[in-house]
Amino acid sequence: MNDAAKTLIARAMSEASAPTSFSAYAPSNIALSKYWGKRDRARNLPLNSSLSISLADWGSHTQVAPSDTGQDQVSLNGEALALDTSFASKALNFVDLFRGNNETPLNITTKNTIPTAAGLASSASGFAALTRALCGCFGLDLSEAEMSLIARLGSGSASRSLWHGFVRWDKGVAENGADSFAHPVSVDWPDFRIAIIPVDTGPKSHSSRDGMNHTVDTSPLFEAWPAQAEKDCNAIERFVREKDFTALGQHAEANALAMHATMQAARPAITYLNARSWSILDQLWRARQKGLEAYATMDAGPNIKLIFEAKSASDIQSEFPDAQIIAPFEHS
Amino acid sequence: MNDAAKTLIARAMSEASAPTSFSAYAPSNIALSKYWGKRDRARNLPLNSSLSISLADWGSHTQVAPSDTGQDQVSLNGEALALDTSFASKALNFVDLFRGNNETPLNITTKNTIPTAAGLASSASGFAALTRALCGCFGLDLSEAEMSLIARLGSGSASRSLWHGFVRWDKGVAENGADSFAHPVSVDWPDFRIAIIPVDTGPKSHSSRDGMNHTVDTSPLFEAWPAQAEKDCNAIERFVREKDFTALGQHAEANALAMHATMQAARPAITYLNARSWSILDQLWRARQKGLEAYATMDAGPNIKLIFEAKSASDIQSEFPDAQIIAPFEHS
Repeated sequence: MNDAAKTLIARAMSEASAPTSFSAYAPSNIALSKYWGKRDRARNLPLNSSLSISLADWGSHTQVAPSDTGQDQVSLNGEALALDTSFASKALNFVDLFRGNNETPLNITTKNTIPTAAGLASSASGFAALTRALCGCFGLDLSEAEMSLIARLGSGSASRSLWHGFVRWDKGVAENGADSFAHPVSVDWPDFRIAIIPVDTGPKSHSSRDGMNHTVDTSPLFEAWPAQAEKDCNAIERFVREKDFTALGQHAEANALAMHATMQAARPAITYLNARSWSILDQLWRARQKGLEAYATMDAGPNIKLIFEAKSASDIQSEFPDAQIIAPFEHS
Repeated sequence: MNDAAKTLIARAMSEASAPTSFSAYAPSNIALSKYWGKRDRARNLPLNSSLSISLADWGSHTQVAPSDTGQDQVSLNGEALALDTSFASKALNFVDLFRGNNETPLNITTKNTIPTAAGLASSASGFAALTRALCGCFGLDLSEAEMSLIARLGSGSASRSLWHGFVRWDKGVAENGADSFAHPVSVDWPDFRIAIIPVDTGPKSHSSRDGMNHTVDTSPLFEAWPAQAEKDCNAIERFVREKDFTALGQHAEANALAMHATMQAARPAITYLNARSWSILDQLWRARQKGLEAYATMDAGPNIKLIFEAKSASDIQSEFPDAQIIAPFEHS
């Protein structure tokens, strides 16, 4: 199967240097216009473009170095993992895309700086940081756009975690995925804020990958999603560029609710949002009627994320005392 | 505008007798396959067929009699209403379809037997009972199918309240509505049960009419609804005829969730279900995993309705102590 990411990796690896220790960081991200549904499951090619905001210093630090034991080693947050754990095997499968049959044993060390209590997935930042670290370790001559295309193979949303700030992942149309990668949307918006309101930080009932595929396969309402999601992504990019916070917020919230609606109509239904999530949404909507300008977005889990501007931060914190606030343009 | 219902009324009224007092009863109903979206708002013509179960002795008793004061009189549940109240003006507008310019003053007395705590709308049973009572009062020669077609002008779901048991409202295709009326699905299922779990019995945030029109106008996911709803209605009729309770329940629940999903994707969103509704749904789904066979359906309000068979009644009552249980085939 012709895969643009694999072709890129093979070409770069043909001129690889001997592996040396290399560390990289990638931020996590939250989509304001959601990625939901694949046109190609093997290549992680999406049915629609998406646009995210990166989470500054909440992300993954990953080091890839030659292993000094002759065996692969994987550690996460300071703990050595058995190689058959889910995390280690996913990371090593991705590493194998680079080293192929040349089984250079590597030592992969990941540290996530995302508070566990935030209940955010770390696969986006994890695969983006791993891509950067692998490219550095092997001295590969790849651009960030090319790294984004490659990170996509690990996790679709990882393609957006190569940069800080607003990032757009174009769905692309090529069958081999050559034009499906992200690029930064160069808008500096220092007052933009995100709040994470944790609801349940335990493991998800369904992985987002399974939820997405089940929705595409069984939800009668899904057929209307890809065209609307593309329209939303274009509108949201325009509102980001115009810094029209109200229009951005309204569209981002509507886009997230529509994504969850496609799942709710799946057969059987998938409901990542629970009663507590809906209670927070109701509280938000009541506060908004009283003048608090904040909008919600929700991913494949029950937590609620809010977007707002710096001037609303103290109101957000008093309305939602659990909220963890992030300033996406203030990062190391 | 050529309207089949108005034509029927005019033809029947041309042979009307002098008005005499007439009382009629119509049961309320709950759709197992929902009516959601109109192809003609003036004529209440639906985009899809629907199928309901009537609520036995929960409904409306309506008497229409010549007024002895020379003025219209309207009373509801024993209380005389001002003629400009919402209830009275809707009822009199419907009455005017019959008496036209011949302003025979009438006394309209309605008593609803639906417990207020159930939070169910009474417009379906109300317009069905009013149609029957008007036809009786004027001695009109109209079949029940014709009365169903006429009741539809008052409220779409009223077309299904002319009968007990399972009733199907065919959407029809005629522009003037001549083929858009209901008929009973002749299946006797004495063990069929309904439970109403009240969540909030106050007035709705949006009328179902407004919610429906806003969804059709703004929800990007709505376009996929009519075809799926028609498919669901046909499947549900088949499962009723086969008395396949599991398949019926699964389809009814999925159909209701899909309807709510179309609203959740409206812009702005309409969320009739609140946190308590979702908490009850979650409780139901957990109980179902443990073997309790019951399925949920929800209309334009936060209350949850369950369908199940008689053998599960005591389990339902202990899982949901607030539930009010109805045996739809046990009626006066």
